[in-house]
Amino acid sequence: MIFSKRSIYIKTPIHEEDELAKRLTAQGKNVIKLNRGDPAEYFKTPKYIIDAYIAALKAGKTGYGESLGVKELRTAVANHYGKRCGIGTTPEDVVVTQGVSEAFGFINSMLIDEGDRAVVFAPSYSQYLPNLYLYGGVPITEPYHEEKGWSLDTDSLRKNVKKSFESGKKIKYLILANPNNPTGTVHSRKTLSDIAEIAKDYNILLISDEIYDEIVYNGGKFTSMCDVSKGIPHIILDGASKDYDATGFRIGLMIIPEHDKESTEMKEKLLDCCKTRLSANTPAQYAVAEGFNNVAEHKKAVAEMVSEISDRVNFLSKRINESEYMHTVVPNASFYIFPQLNMDKLDLDGDAEFVRKLLEEESVQITRGSGFGTKDHVRIVSLAPKETLELAVEKMDRFCKRHKK
Amino acid sequence: MIFSKRSIYIKTPIHEEDELAKRLTAQGKNVIKLNRGDPAEYFKTPKYIIDAYIAALKAGKTGYGESLGVKELRTAVANHYGKRCGIGTTPEDVVVTQGVSEAFGFINSMLIDEGDRAVVFAPSYSQYLPNLYLYGGVPITEPYHEEKGWSLDTDSLRKNVKKSFESGKKIKYLILANPNNPTGTVHSRKTLSDIAEIAKDYNILLISDEIYDEIVYNGGKFTSMCDVSKGIPHIILDGASKDYDATGFRIGLMIIPEHDKESTEMKEKLLDCCKTRLSANTPAQYAVAEGFNNVAEHKKAVAEMVSEISDRVNFLSKRINESEYMHTVVPNASFYIFPQLNMDKLDLDGDAEFVRKLLEEESVQITRGSGFGTKDHVRIVSLAPKETLELAVEKMDRFCKRHKK
Repeated sequence: MIFSKRSIYIKTPIHEEDELAKRLTAQGKNVIKLNRGDPAEYFKTPKYIIDAYIAALKAGKTGYGESLGVKELRTAVANHYGKRCGIGTTPEDVVVTQGVSEAFGFINSMLIDEGDRAVVFAPSYSQYLPNLYLYGGVPITEPYHEEKGWSLDTDSLRKNVKKSFESGKKIKYLILANPNNPTGTVHSRKTLSDIAEIAKDYNILLISDEIYDEIVYNGGKFTSMCDVSKGIPHIILDGASKDYDATGFRIGLMIIPEHDKESTEMKEKLLDCCKTRLSANTPAQYAVAEGFNNVAEHKKAVAEMVSEISDRVNFLSKRINESEYMHTVVPNASFYIFPQLNMDKLDLDGDAEFVRKLLEEESVQITRGSGFGTKDHVRIVSLAPKETLELAVEKMDRFCKRHKK
Repeated sequence: MIFSKRSIYIKTPIHEEDELAKRLTAQGKNVIKLNRGDPAEYFKTPKYIIDAYIAALKAGKTGYGESLGVKELRTAVANHYGKRCGIGTTPEDVVVTQGVSEAFGFINSMLIDEGDRAVVFAPSYSQYLPNLYLYGGVPITEPYHEEKGWSLDTDSLRKNVKKSFESGKKIKYLILANPNNPTGTVHSRKTLSDIAEIAKDYNILLISDEIYDEIVYNGGKFTSMCDVSKGIPHIILDGASKDYDATGFRIGLMIIPEHDKESTEMKEKLLDCCKTRLSANTPAQYAVAEGFNNVAEHKKAVAEMVSEISDRVNFLSKRINESEYMHTVVPNASFYIFPQLNMDKLDLDGDAEFVRKLLEEESVQITRGSGFGTKDHVRIVSLAPKETLELAVEKMDRFCKRHKK
């Protein structure tokens, strides 16, 4: 088959070892899968949400919904963000997508032609870069600093942005995950307001992926980009998958709180994007609307889940940090940990070989850090019960000892 | 906002008058919407499918499904196509997409770089062309012949394909809808086998969009591309939206029945496409699996729906053909009619003005034919009850008389 040149960017590290894992399973191995961030695999999606889903099905909500998203969901999200952002967010400021993944395609097709620039941080979610490349975009990559708890150096960011502009290369957007995947860290309010300043000074569209905004613990304090970006065009990405423990619904959200000319034009263009694929899943949208509307039930459900998640993350982090072959910044958000491999002590060719051989030899599936833009690291999903996590760490210990230099 | 150059292709004619329709509704007008092909708006999605959907939700099938699609659905579809194609179709030959719309993006991102060719017929579904353009592709457009019941001249097609190849412009794929949207016509077996021959001779990937395959009547006889393409790489597009009356589920299907090298490579690349967006809606997939598996219930449901649809289509076609301002080929499939406007007798600037003014003046929303690649036509969705269709035709009559030359 003669594929397109662009097709090399159709890939994700998270699932790249799935076929090997399947073969091992077929051979009778019990593969411990810590690669996919799916809370619904371990925590039941709250009953009040399932009940609303069933009610929508019984009420015959099975046809196409409005392309932009059903009004009930957009209203519920607008109310939520109206309170959060302290401005008059309306249902017209909300776009419902088929998972946040769909939003990446909307953003890049709407903004990016061959050679256009975007700021992407490293490490960050494994679709930001390939989706940008798919449309011919060129990243300006700014690193997170692990030694400072995976924080950003916003002075360095400003310098790089300035350099790009002075060389005539305009930057279309900056995308940031907060809390960040794969590092599991929230950004400080100061970092976010610095970024907003830079975006304002250089007229860069801000995109803040806040899908893990309610999964925060260990003293982490989440600030939404909408809180520090008043008057600056920005898009917030959110959805039902993580906070509402409903990954399989495929309901993502784009919120554009501002009403300036650029934000308004963007909403029109995103409506066009939505129309081309007619609708997201209709009954699931009613379920998520109930998720947002029933604040009391949601608070209870998310608190229970976050308490359990933080327990598992802290357990795994502690065990990882007892190893001489790995160490990790202890996360304060999401359910990922992103340890650095001590490659000085390991006789392996970087994170990719580490991950592949760990699966082959110990039947533990995790994800290579280079797939998120930072080598010599691995991403481990810390959602499984502690016995499973403990077993996985034991296997990783054994694996590292076997491959020590 | 500085949008990408490509962003002008993010559009669909089907919903382009939605904002006007909304304004009219807000003014108290009763807008008759005959623009969107949504059977679930008029016919209840079968209860046995809804029951399976609810059972999946109650059983906790709310996490990410397998990226390629849940095994139960792919197995059900493979069984169905195994019988239809008379070859050993397996679950690995089936890809579940978020509606067929998602498949267009997969196909073009996988195959098309700037300047690559694809054959598209006119008129055909309104996303084939814009999605090709979005990725920089260039169409070779071959017309359907209205005077011959919207059939194809496959000699002319062969000539044009040959010309393109002789000038060094390789054609990546040919996409055909059968039954065709917007004309509502099925292709003859002879036409399909001629096309398969051409595809084989010039090594062009065949894509056959068969989403309306069971909505056939008036003596129409449907042949699947898989029936005439043995040994030739091809993709069949199908889904739950139309035959299973479940548009709001967003479950599309790609079936690649062959097992040659090109087909195998394509399945691998499509798996990569699927992985980048993790999963389609999970519980909906179990519902559609039951749709395919419960053949007896499905046959009953689809027969009832098709009987009612054909009645409505025939009623509307007859009424349209009584007008001196329009005439239509009587469809034998789907639920669209695609009348030609008699522009010699109308003082209007083509189909776009016809459609816009009809909405403004008579509150009837239909779609312009130019949006499907054939001007001076309109597409009317013939799913509403006869009273609604009759009222719409009366309004169209009145409108035409008001705008006669």
